[in-house]
Amino acid sequence: MPEIRKNLITGEYVIMAPERAKRPEDFVHPAKPTDVPEFQPNCPFCPGNEDKTPPHNYRVPEEGQWAQRCIPNKFSALNSAGELWKKEDDLKLSTAGVGLHEVIIETPRHDLCVAQQPTEDVKGLVRTYHNRFTAFHADPRVEHVILFRNHGAAAGTSLEHPHSQIVGLPMTPAQVRTRFDDALKFFLSDGDCIVCRTMRAEREEGVRVIMETKHFLAFIPYAALSPFHTWIFPKKHSACFGSTTPEELDDMALVLKTVLAKIRKGLDNPDFNYVIRSGAPGEAHMKHLHWYIAIVPRVTKAAGFELGTGMYINPSIPEASAEFLRKVEV
Amino acid sequence: MPEIRKNLITGEYVIMAPERAKRPEDFVHPAKPTDVPEFQPNCPFCPGNEDKTPPHNYRVPEEGQWAQRCIPNKFSALNSAGELWKKEDDLKLSTAGVGLHEVIIETPRHDLCVAQQPTEDVKGLVRTYHNRFTAFHADPRVEHVILFRNHGAAAGTSLEHPHSQIVGLPMTPAQVRTRFDDALKFFLSDGDCIVCRTMRAEREEGVRVIMETKHFLAFIPYAALSPFHTWIFPKKHSACFGSTTPEELDDMALVLKTVLAKIRKGLDNPDFNYVIRSGAPGEAHMKHLHWYIAIVPRVTKAAGFELGTGMYINPSIPEASAEFLRKVEV
Repeated sequence: MPEIRKNLITGEYVIMAPERAKRPEDFVHPAKPTDVPEFQPNCPFCPGNEDKTPPHNYRVPEEGQWAQRCIPNKFSALNSAGELWKKEDDLKLSTAGVGLHEVIIETPRHDLCVAQQPTEDVKGLVRTYHNRFTAFHADPRVEHVILFRNHGAAAGTSLEHPHSQIVGLPMTPAQVRTRFDDALKFFLSDGDCIVCRTMRAEREEGVRVIMETKHFLAFIPYAALSPFHTWIFPKKHSACFGSTTPEELDDMALVLKTVLAKIRKGLDNPDFNYVIRSGAPGEAHMKHLHWYIAIVPRVTKAAGFELGTGMYINPSIPEASAEFLRKVEV
Repeated sequence: MPEIRKNLITGEYVIMAPERAKRPEDFVHPAKPTDVPEFQPNCPFCPGNEDKTPPHNYRVPEEGQWAQRCIPNKFSALNSAGELWKKEDDLKLSTAGVGLHEVIIETPRHDLCVAQQPTEDVKGLVRTYHNRFTAFHADPRVEHVILFRNHGAAAGTSLEHPHSQIVGLPMTPAQVRTRFDDALKFFLSDGDCIVCRTMRAEREEGVRVIMETKHFLAFIPYAALSPFHTWIFPKKHSACFGSTTPEELDDMALVLKTVLAKIRKGLDNPDFNYVIRSGAPGEAHMKHLHWYIAIVPRVTKAAGFELGTGMYINPSIPEASAEFLRKVEV
């Protein structure tokens, strides 16, 4: 019997459609090239081709072969120079497209995603994420920062070399603001952070948990919008990714790498996106906000129904998907 | 200089990114098979294969060769039998997945989309849309109806034979409710329907208009979320598609066919979705709500940025796209 579940954190409804339900194995993506080379002479992100991109804003280490290299996005969505302005001309409201947009080249290796890298290397990447997040927020024009990863064509990237992106926006997006408002309403009525509460309930019930580390819980939400949609929640309550300690960052590298490796192995390297959803450093102390990571494998397609309703049809069972991923050994 | 525009009707922000901007011609989709046959022996929607689908709920005409045939979706997202229930178990909120889900086979011809059909045939299809919309709302369990069309793989369909879908939901989706609320706020502060106001402004300015008929205005919104995202607004104020008169339906067929033909010819048959966004018949009289059609060609891909922010990056200029489509002769 189909069931409509409500996601309390996103405010979205999802139709769990058992008549359409598939086994986890059925979401295995068509096989991809497995012969990706370590080095691709024409790739602008491969070592030795640094002159094919804008000069870096940040790199680690500063000397010798870089491990991560952060460069302005050549096709930046926003202008890094210029003042903020706001215009209101009858119904036409606009603001300056001012902000920051960087590409984070994750590794010199053309062929190694987070799922395949040694944990030590992923720790370096996560520290770089933290550095860029903090640096972006230091720009007074930046109000909201989003860090994301597109893997594969269905996830919106054409460049194979592992890279993430980070955007500093001059305003808080409406969707983010709505979720913040919903979290505040929950806090005011229940006296608790909705993320902390959800985490406690998921740990207790256990059936949707993929893995747990000292500082993080990875699970498939009760009202997951799409198959294998995974959340990684930090156990420490904080609204801001910037407040994460070095020890927690190391643990985040471990959980991110392990979950991505399980998805890669279990579903045969599907396309995916992940995003870090976070408040700003100035909001870090807020009791109702809690930063987290969302991973979305692109194994189904949104169509007219999703477009017209903002709802989703999920042809998988979160509990079965979580069990499947728990059992994948990596 | 990039600019962030706000869409007052959807509440969404979009980054207009001229550094990424392409000419309208650059969005032409990779060529598709042009040798689609009139009849496909294995297609469950082709005439003669009616036994490969569930029996029809509705067909026109009732005798002889059907022009449209409406059948329960074999992989229905919702259960058409059963009572409504609601469960609340701590954080887990769910309701019965009860509702209606039909496939509207648009034509017996395997190869003819709305863009290619004679206007007379499209008039029949639009009347069928109206019939099913009204019939769905007659079910007391149905609270919201969404009618949509998926064309091509990127728009989420695998079946080539032209077909639309209609879903009757037992609740109003959160996204729809938010837009209704925003429309009410606008009405309360400005004393006007936001859709009527937008339509007047777009007609006056003209630069984003694609075409106008007696009863409809087709245009690309000022803050279009993606390239060639088109809205077709009925000039008569009504919250409900069900209130449309036969004359208006005939005119809707003309404008829908013409806009789709312009998109098909100008962009070489791109994948697309369209949806009819409407209130329920019981809301028809509401002064702040106004039904309309949205057409979204799938020429760009949403990625991590869109996922994490609900915002969009539009690499096209609405004014240039509208001019391009205005000039396509069909």
